Amino acid sequence: MSAEAAAPATPDTTLPIALDAVGGDHGAAPNVEGAVQAARAGVPVLLVGPRVALHAELGKHAGSASLPLRVVDAPDVIGMDEHASDVRSRTGASINVCTRLVKEGKAAAAVSMGHSGATMASALLTLGRLRGVDRPAILTHLPSKKGFVTLLDVGANADVKPGYLAQWARLATVYLRVVEDKTDPTVGLLSIGEEDHKGSQLVLEAHALLRELNGKGIHFRGNVEGRDIFQGTTDIVVTDGFTGNVVLKLAEGEAKVLFGWVRDALGGNLRTKVGGLLVRGALRGLAERMDPSTYGASILLGVRGLAFIGHGSADARAVKNALLRASRAHEAKLIERLEGALAPQAG
Amino acid sequence: MSAEAAAPATPDTTLPIALDAVGGDHGAAPNVEGAVQAARAGVPVLLVGPRVALHAELGKHAGSASLPLRVVDAPDVIGMDEHASDVRSRTGASINVCTRLVKEGKAAAAVSMGHSGATMASALLTLGRLRGVDRPAILTHLPSKKGFVTLLDVGANADVKPGYLAQWARLATVYLRVVEDKTDPTVGLLSIGEEDHKGSQLVLEAHALLRELNGKGIHFRGNVEGRDIFQGTTDIVVTDGFTGNVVLKLAEGEAKVLFGWVRDALGGNLRTKVGGLLVRGALRGLAERMDPSTYGASILLGVRGLAFIGHGSADARAVKNALLRASRAHEAKLIERLEGALAPQAG
Repeated sequence: MSAEAAAPATPDTTLPIALDAVGGDHGAAPNVEGAVQAARAGVPVLLVGPRVALHAELGKHAGSASLPLRVVDAPDVIGMDEHASDVRSRTGASINVCTRLVKEGKAAAAVSMGHSGATMASALLTLGRLRGVDRPAILTHLPSKKGFVTLLDVGANADVKPGYLAQWARLATVYLRVVEDKTDPTVGLLSIGEEDHKGSQLVLEAHALLRELNGKGIHFRGNVEGRDIFQGTTDIVVTDGFTGNVVLKLAEGEAKVLFGWVRDALGGNLRTKVGGLLVRGALRGLAERMDPSTYGASILLGVRGLAFIGHGSADARAVKNALLRASRAHEAKLIERLEGALAPQAG
Repeated sequence: MSAEAAAPATPDTTLPIALDAVGGDHGAAPNVEGAVQAARAGVPVLLVGPRVALHAELGKHAGSASLPLRVVDAPDVIGMDEHASDVRSRTGASINVCTRLVKEGKAAAAVSMGHSGATMASALLTLGRLRGVDRPAILTHLPSKKGFVTLLDVGANADVKPGYLAQWARLATVYLRVVEDKTDPTVGLLSIGEEDHKGSQLVLEAHALLRELNGKGIHFRGNVEGRDIFQGTTDIVVTDGFTGNVVLKLAEGEAKVLFGWVRDALGGNLRTKVGGLLVRGALRGLAERMDPSTYGASILLGVRGLAFIGHGSADARAVKNALLRASRAHEAKLIERLEGALAPQAG
């Protein structure tokens, strides 16, 4: 039995999640509302940002004073249009306060819907990398015929080496086992043909590394293609952060356009209007399935601490789901499990 | 006025299209049926493949004897599971006969639904590259909110250099002007952020080259993201053949899965069943919009002659549309226009 499957010690469930509470396109409102919802569900939250603004926002939620919510002042916020490298000099920026709280053991995880480059940089600078990880990757989920498919990297690394992909396959396998209760998740390598000899130079080399790891911490199923993603052919799809980011944004953009076309087709003429009204409810369920806020946020996998990065356009539901997911990863001792799996003796 | 915009000479419309007539997953039947349809629409076709089998298939179509169709015997066919490199030694293979007919001026274009790697290799070996083109690219179309978007490369080159992307932007611009009557097609470079400084090393260097070409043969609009493809933000999206192939297969695969979910949602319960029946017709129109057979085949752009590569699963409609598209490209003197645009004096 590999190290990450060992029984967890009793988790410290009282440790709060640090939320970058004014991060994102819509400022404090969705963040505070999402935090209130998460707190009502039993997850304590530190709201990190400008104190006065956050207290004002909290005041709009009746009964929030009795919830496990606390404001941590951080007047400086890195805006969506500023540079990620600003995290180096602006030590008091809200995202830096969040990651420091994690580093110091005062928070279980850092969650931000703000500048994703800044969140990555802050997490990497403050928390460092897990031993055995060259570059952290952003892991996210897309809907598939089998429920959901786990994709990484979706944007942390535009240029990668074959060894990164092998490391990410191991990290994602542990993540799915620990956080999503998948017993033996399968791994596919995104390529342009199922045959082993097809693909870019990067993919050919990564394929050989993954083949070697098969049965030693990962269950490698070989190459998969673009069409396999929504089919859910494998539980995990590993790829470089350039391709992964294109895939993620294409998948979301296509769903939006296709559902728009479906709506237009339904409303297009009188004959189908009746049908359109009847099926609207059914389609709403589908739209929800495609909605990134269902998953809340993506984890930055490979740093020594829990860090979650959400959409700038996140609503309260996305914020709540991100906080619950972060809490679940903490309770499952994800970081310790990852460290165990990557330790040399774990194979 | 650039060279490719010069008035065309009277095209030699009597030159037939050479069809690799047993290429693809379904053998002769869809190829011959598609050729019959194209011939009825006035496009002469050479059916290249095993003579007896093709005559037998032709015999199933009443009146085909009076159509501009002729069988050219080629008993050897490169199967879907054979190696693309076989085209070097098997000079009598049907795809090699097709490209040789183009080379010798006996056919206007080569069209194949067979082994796409073999078609590429054969076209490149037999026809050679256009002057100024380092690597040919496969250009295809995807539906978008603006009608369709033109994407290249979708699989000819898994590893590319920045200069290739700049060449492909010029080729695709001429293609859209000449074959699709787009006056001033815009070009986007696929990346992972709209900002100029975002992307892989490849994209950063290609961006600089495209910026230089802006106003000199192309209309460069900067970086685009995965979500821009279905939005139709630009007419053309250039990318490496790895990313492009993933995009193409993801787009097709996602559409198939999403429409399946819509169908399931409509048929899911009695209340929506009535609506489902009413809207089925409307959805059928959408499915057609997403159907690759609407475009028939993709052009291999950059070889010195017209070569079209279709889906192995092509039906008769796809074959017909590919033949009509090939004929249109020939009548529009696409190859001469491309040569003119790439000539040094054309800027």
